[in-house]
Amino acid sequence: MKSFKIALAQFSPAIGNIDSNVQKMINLANDAKKQNADLVIFPELSMIGYPSEDLLLRPSLSKRTAQAFKQLSQVKDIVMVFGFVNLNDQGQRYNSAAVMKNGEILGIYNKQNLPNYGLFDEKRYFDTGNQYLVFEYLEHKFGVLICEDLWTASTVHQLALLNVDTVLVLNASPYEVGKPLHRIQTIQNLTQQLKLNVVYCNQVGGQDDIVFDGTSFVINAQGEMTYRAPSFQECLQVIDYDHEQKSYRSIEPAATLDTMAEIYQSLVMATRDYVQNSGFPGVLIGLSGGIDSALTLAIAVDALGADKVQALMMPYTYTAQISVEDASEQAKNLGVAFGIAEINPIVNSFMQTLYPFFGNSSTDTTEENLQARSRGTLLMGLSNKFGNLVLSTGNKSELAVGYCTLYGDMVGGFAVLKDIYKSIVFELAKYRNSISETPVIPERVITRPPSAELRPDQKDQDSLPAYDVLDAILYAYIEEDLSQDDIIAKGYDKATVERVIQLVDRNEYKRRQGAIGPRITSRAFGRERRYPIVNGWKPGI
Amino acid sequence: MKSFKIALAQFSPAIGNIDSNVQKMINLANDAKKQNADLVIFPELSMIGYPSEDLLLRPSLSKRTAQAFKQLSQVKDIVMVFGFVNLNDQGQRYNSAAVMKNGEILGIYNKQNLPNYGLFDEKRYFDTGNQYLVFEYLEHKFGVLICEDLWTASTVHQLALLNVDTVLVLNASPYEVGKPLHRIQTIQNLTQQLKLNVVYCNQVGGQDDIVFDGTSFVINAQGEMTYRAPSFQECLQVIDYDHEQKSYRSIEPAATLDTMAEIYQSLVMATRDYVQNSGFPGVLIGLSGGIDSALTLAIAVDALGADKVQALMMPYTYTAQISVEDASEQAKNLGVAFGIAEINPIVNSFMQTLYPFFGNSSTDTTEENLQARSRGTLLMGLSNKFGNLVLSTGNKSELAVGYCTLYGDMVGGFAVLKDIYKSIVFELAKYRNSISETPVIPERVITRPPSAELRPDQKDQDSLPAYDVLDAILYAYIEEDLSQDDIIAKGYDKATVERVIQLVDRNEYKRRQGAIGPRITSRAFGRERRYPIVNGWKPGI
Repeated sequence: MKSFKIALAQFSPAIGNIDSNVQKMINLANDAKKQNADLVIFPELSMIGYPSEDLLLRPSLSKRTAQAFKQLSQVKDIVMVFGFVNLNDQGQRYNSAAVMKNGEILGIYNKQNLPNYGLFDEKRYFDTGNQYLVFEYLEHKFGVLICEDLWTASTVHQLALLNVDTVLVLNASPYEVGKPLHRIQTIQNLTQQLKLNVVYCNQVGGQDDIVFDGTSFVINAQGEMTYRAPSFQECLQVIDYDHEQKSYRSIEPAATLDTMAEIYQSLVMATRDYVQNSGFPGVLIGLSGGIDSALTLAIAVDALGADKVQALMMPYTYTAQISVEDASEQAKNLGVAFGIAEINPIVNSFMQTLYPFFGNSSTDTTEENLQARSRGTLLMGLSNKFGNLVLSTGNKSELAVGYCTLYGDMVGGFAVLKDIYKSIVFELAKYRNSISETPVIPERVITRPPSAELRPDQKDQDSLPAYDVLDAILYAYIEEDLSQDDIIAKGYDKATVERVIQLVDRNEYKRRQGAIGPRITSRAFGRERRYPIVNGWKPGI
Repeated sequence: MKSFKIALAQFSPAIGNIDSNVQKMINLANDAKKQNADLVIFPELSMIGYPSEDLLLRPSLSKRTAQAFKQLSQVKDIVMVFGFVNLNDQGQRYNSAAVMKNGEILGIYNKQNLPNYGLFDEKRYFDTGNQYLVFEYLEHKFGVLICEDLWTASTVHQLALLNVDTVLVLNASPYEVGKPLHRIQTIQNLTQQLKLNVVYCNQVGGQDDIVFDGTSFVINAQGEMTYRAPSFQECLQVIDYDHEQKSYRSIEPAATLDTMAEIYQSLVMATRDYVQNSGFPGVLIGLSGGIDSALTLAIAVDALGADKVQALMMPYTYTAQISVEDASEQAKNLGVAFGIAEINPIVNSFMQTLYPFFGNSSTDTTEENLQARSRGTLLMGLSNKFGNLVLSTGNKSELAVGYCTLYGDMVGGFAVLKDIYKSIVFELAKYRNSISETPVIPERVITRPPSAELRPDQKDQDSLPAYDVLDAILYAYIEEDLSQDDIIAKGYDKATVERVIQLVDRNEYKRRQGAIGPRITSRAFGRERRYPIVNGWKPGI
């Protein structure tokens, strides 16, 4: 046996853009060679990016893939292990890894375990592989697995029986809070048991609502982590195998992030990637003086730079003066362009047009929604004129119970806080203030009782339970799948639980028309919680 | 062998509402008994309805199912063959059929072929069955299959080898144009070949965007259709088995529908079911004087009755007088409440508020969108105040290329024409006029060149290719999955094809925030065409 070097290429592919991904892979392979790497490993489906959804069904995919193999064959004197879609003449389609050297394909592995739950739909696209790939190189025995394979005990055990020294794992493993470290702990137990070295290379970057954190790692056969890549950024890291120690040499791991830092950085990356990869010159945010828009503004500035962010305050009769002051201070603290546009004339013109139809009906949320929709239309007007993307500012608690106005404050192309419960919004605001010398979000914004300011002296808690109670009930219902009876049995007020669950169920139609936003929990609204709109399920047991 | 009677219960389940579905099934079984039926067959998953999506993952489903079995066991002296979710102690979940008599379960069949393409996601929810169910009753040998099983040659052939006389097939087969007759033709060939009688019972009704046409049928072992149920309505039909002829006795089939009648009725049923099952008292439609809103209005009236439909015309400077006249005439012809609300003051107040921000920038689609959003907000104001659902009026051609305003004319809870290309909109309007004594859609509305009337003398064809060309390109790209090069090779103008495809790809974000609407093609926007929003795929090959 001899020593050798492996490069982990934790990169962010452009979904569907095979040409640009292949060019990036060639550059990374050449960089790895300059650092004397003998092998470079890329993430799952690195050639087309994950998840490419129905692009995987386009008829020309096989031709495009063949062209990409031709381009990759120009890379000399380094083994490349990369992900691609393997289409055969019988019309089967596999999620696969290729091992290539000097244009020669040394082996192909077809993924054996296809996740088809939560946000995953792999059985829609792929057939199931049924063979292992093991190859000898550098007097070392390598096995190849793809993502879900590593979490499937029977598959890993079978591979271990083939006397593999190192398993190369190609991944597109989406981020969830705490998952970067959780993956490592789980695999540490596994490698100890099976005496395998694991080299784990993960995709990084935001793709629509899905966030890939990267956080690639190496764990040796003793269960020791010898390397951990940073989260939420691309990196190319070369690791050394020491044949005497029969282990990979330790490299200082990237700093661990505490929970709020981890969530915050995930939102920053997701926002940056969505805006930049969609080709928008910048973003536009409606500030209310409240905490949701303040936090969204801070994230946008950290993602794109202050010069790419515009803020607009749109006060109405019920807007407190301190809201205008606080919004203005937020914008000033962060150095973004800030404007004020009173909406009274607009709301009045709507009212005057509608009064003849309303007759003697009493005031209700209709009038509140007119305010929200006047604001939404103003933001979209500025967006249409100057091309900036509107970021919407609603949080998960509001979206869950429908405490938001469709075509009003829900306007926008990307909802930064879509998967963030209100309780976490507060924590993230405090976290963001803690990392700069002077707070960017005025203290008053954090301590003031939340209000939509859509009627005189309104507080969110007039219509909703306190946010800590609301969020606990929502978490139990949405994330933990508990029933109404289960949640009441935990000690929550019966009427409150019933009302919250009814609101969640009834507001599916609203969420269905909302913007996408970064997923950071195991049960985000969107592609992984698929409920019918017309829904006759009765809460209860 | 002896003669016997089978009842086909083509019914519309309430998705997720097991109690109400079970009650309906009990009533249907008792009605069937009164008509001397020996057996009654219900559609696929009749107990919970199809598709119940993530309700299938709720932990209490097994308890609810057990309760439902208890209720169904009250039915005496008739065999019931119904669909349910079969959960076992090992956590497996099957899409299953039960055969029950006097509370005794005579057999259970687990579906063997789970569709997981197009709009189907069955592998997300179900495990795969691997055994056949054959039972003797009335000196006759019955086999049971569920939907996709019947379209899987190997499965049907295996069942035929078990010497089955009649296959009972439980279905939730979604409607597509032409599919009601296409199913029958396909199965006629099959039964001839395999010498099987097929009794096919399909779900009927609209569920969110999915339309089930029903059109249940019976085909005998000679390949003759002996019964065909009506489309788009519930029915309970008893059929006789004649033991001497060894065949089911012929019953006059329901009248066949020509293509436009079929599509029109599908939209009427889908609209009725969405509105009624969501609990809305009625609907509200913004009329423009154009053909899309005119057709939507006619469908709404046919679905709900004129007293449940309100229409509002919202003219602006660029609205032609004939548009107001035509809208008024449509409303009058159909007998619906009609109002006019000028939007000039509203648009002006938006303009005045935005001018200081716009500076010297020239007029563009921003100003057009303000008109559309003023209208959308007015409709939502009336909807919020009085509770009627807004129906949006955009068609598939517009949605495909983004010729529509998000939060403007896209406002609404149900988009009746979402899957209808503009060319078909014209045909449907003519069809609707042909079935009443006097035309309900003024002739001028059909013959006038389409215009959004968002700027002076605007015509749709200023910005878009002629609709017949546009629709042909869209059909080739969306429905047929042809590439840009393929479509150009068919003889279409290169620049036009490139532009149309770019518009389709770029406007995914808009469609993602649009209302759901009835699916009538094999590639509707929505759950069966899943494209990423940030999409780097380059058109070409």
